[in-house]
Amino acid sequence: MTTPDPHATDHGNLIHTQGVTAPLGFRAAGIAAGIKASGKPDLALVLNEGPEYAAAGVFTSNQVKAAPVLWSQQVLKSGRVRAVILNSGGANACTGPGGFQDTHKTAEELAAALSNWGTETGAGEIAVCSTGLIGDRLPMDKLIPAVTEIVHEMGGGMSGGSDAAHAIMTTDTVPKESAFHHEDKWNVGGMAKGAGMLAPSLATMLVVLTTDAVATPEQLDRALRKATKYTFDRLDVDGSCSTNDTVLLLANGASGVAPSQDDLDAAVFTVCDDLAAQLMADAEGVTKRVTVTVTGAASEDEALIAARAVARDSLVKTALFGSDPNWGRVLAAVGIAPITLNPDRIAVSFNGNPVCVDSVGAPGAREVDLSGADIAVLIELHVGEGTAMVRTTDLSHAYVEENSAYSS
Amino acid sequence: MTTPDPHATDHGNLIHTQGVTAPLGFRAAGIAAGIKASGKPDLALVLNEGPEYAAAGVFTSNQVKAAPVLWSQQVLKSGRVRAVILNSGGANACTGPGGFQDTHKTAEELAAALSNWGTETGAGEIAVCSTGLIGDRLPMDKLIPAVTEIVHEMGGGMSGGSDAAHAIMTTDTVPKESAFHHEDKWNVGGMAKGAGMLAPSLATMLVVLTTDAVATPEQLDRALRKATKYTFDRLDVDGSCSTNDTVLLLANGASGVAPSQDDLDAAVFTVCDDLAAQLMADAEGVTKRVTVTVTGAASEDEALIAARAVARDSLVKTALFGSDPNWGRVLAAVGIAPITLNPDRIAVSFNGNPVCVDSVGAPGAREVDLSGADIAVLIELHVGEGTAMVRTTDLSHAYVEENSAYSS
Repeated sequence: MTTPDPHATDHGNLIHTQGVTAPLGFRAAGIAAGIKASGKPDLALVLNEGPEYAAAGVFTSNQVKAAPVLWSQQVLKSGRVRAVILNSGGANACTGPGGFQDTHKTAEELAAALSNWGTETGAGEIAVCSTGLIGDRLPMDKLIPAVTEIVHEMGGGMSGGSDAAHAIMTTDTVPKESAFHHEDKWNVGGMAKGAGMLAPSLATMLVVLTTDAVATPEQLDRALRKATKYTFDRLDVDGSCSTNDTVLLLANGASGVAPSQDDLDAAVFTVCDDLAAQLMADAEGVTKRVTVTVTGAASEDEALIAARAVARDSLVKTALFGSDPNWGRVLAAVGIAPITLNPDRIAVSFNGNPVCVDSVGAPGAREVDLSGADIAVLIELHVGEGTAMVRTTDLSHAYVEENSAYSS
Repeated sequence: MTTPDPHATDHGNLIHTQGVTAPLGFRAAGIAAGIKASGKPDLALVLNEGPEYAAAGVFTSNQVKAAPVLWSQQVLKSGRVRAVILNSGGANACTGPGGFQDTHKTAEELAAALSNWGTETGAGEIAVCSTGLIGDRLPMDKLIPAVTEIVHEMGGGMSGGSDAAHAIMTTDTVPKESAFHHEDKWNVGGMAKGAGMLAPSLATMLVVLTTDAVATPEQLDRALRKATKYTFDRLDVDGSCSTNDTVLLLANGASGVAPSQDDLDAAVFTVCDDLAAQLMADAEGVTKRVTVTVTGAASEDEALIAARAVARDSLVKTALFGSDPNWGRVLAAVGIAPITLNPDRIAVSFNGNPVCVDSVGAPGAREVDLSGADIAVLIELHVGEGTAMVRTTDLSHAYVEENSAYSS
């Protein structure tokens, strides 16, 4: 099995309105710390109440890493996390040694506040995530007092998770939450933010996942890497990630249930897949939700390269925005991909309608109706057995508008 | 010397209003054959009157190649071309064996028409270029009679070259011509079309260059490859070329002058560089002309990879459209490039204003004025000595508009 079983839901229920506090033993909160000029919520906290504190993380592959990424990578080496503090309103990236000290100071303040509140915690057990504009220092005069405030705000119910999901939004229009309740009485919950995901640069994607399953850091790491490979990493392009991208998975064993690795993999995949679909649907300026599937490639890797080449092609994306079944642009994009091709055997279909067979237009290809919001592009290479799917979006006026005015 | 000498103009004059008929012994024409529904000119002819017929060509690296590319690649193997026939209004790409037969038939018709006109010609001496929508067969009932008509229309003066430059336009708003008159009494002329050149897919670029210098096909090939490497190939991205991209260089020796290889290289480079600048300035929906220069990379190749990563980044391009000096997006884009980086030593400047030093924002960085039409992005990596420059454009509303409605 390469792709995790997408049918975990056969053994439980997926609920979109619950998030990180759906599993037992997690608290969360979201408040307005004053980092955002708008006064909207901008600080979130997720606390693991134990009894265990196992954790795993996946971070950006960008060589330019934000201070909170450098910090959290160190923290995750221990495989142990008690709490995650996340801010929107500033990425704390490209801020030099001073920016790293700000992250360190934030973790120390939270550790002190949690200890005062009755949960003895060290700064080295606290992961930090930031999202927002690159290059500016965080307003620590506002952030530090807010760290104590948010500890007092923490609630134990669903509202805490929802408040946290709201507080990490940047250009997101809706919060993203998902929870899976396994029939064997253990649970996985999650929240995500990330809106500008058109190729070739992801805007920051932050994801926090929680589970009350009993699991070691190694088991969590395997489940998380397997899930992200087929979900967040295939949301357009994984090679193109921001300075701040972070996906964390925390486990406390509060359910007392130790699922098999396969069951854990499937549940984590299910929540990640649901969150990835929500991220795509709320991408900046999106008017179309697009899946690009390549079959018949020489290998899965080559299928993925081809799918990404199409998914990131501006001429394909603008055509889809215009509901234009311009399949020639799909062939031109595939032809650029550095993979094994038979240029005379490529087939393309849009939403199940063949538009190109053996690299030549099919009858009626120009009349295919793509006016709906969902477009499935299928490309058959007839070279081998490799298959891969990538999620992407169209390239719209709203995308240009939003991204040309972001920092000003 | 890696980059050809850009100061060839020290030894002659560059004139933007002359094109392929500027050198001695070339005729050209452009007419409306009725391929375009608009009735605008859509068929161009460039004829080499000899005494020599040496030629070289550079073609798309796309694995999906249009019929005229497959045909012309065969023709160019002989190093001999008498005439080039070019049509806009249809790419004749992804048209199968029937499309290739159409190209063959066009060359045969032109050979016959030229022979009747008094210039004994074989189909194997005729290069064919096409540009327009991918996937439709050409209207041969209109094209074939027009091939005879255009032979009769050929003029010997400047107007012929200008008519040809007009006839190859698609979404171009102006024709592109350039001619260099060397002080030693030999000349290079050229015309180009190509408008949608935003990453990651070039719309078709067609270029025909002519010279009355005495030169062998091998000399022409060297000059052409050297020139295209530093001009058309660095117009955003060369790995991302269309199904039809073609650059041809024809020489007839009519001047009687045999320049040195270096002089030939420099003159061909000068005309290509000028045409590339014209192509960038007229790119679809462009409001900014952008150069991205990377210095201090581990090698020239790595500098080029980094420059392309920035030049094709949608978040960088939308920021530039908004005149927003959002240097953080430049760092994020550089960080994705698979090259040797010191993430703490990157410097960025916009139009000579330092906005980022040692990967941290410079004072006043957010206030740099980018409201003008030209933006020079300089990225210093401080790793080695490699340098490269790429030309690109912003990503504007007009780009989305034009490309979302192209085939419909």
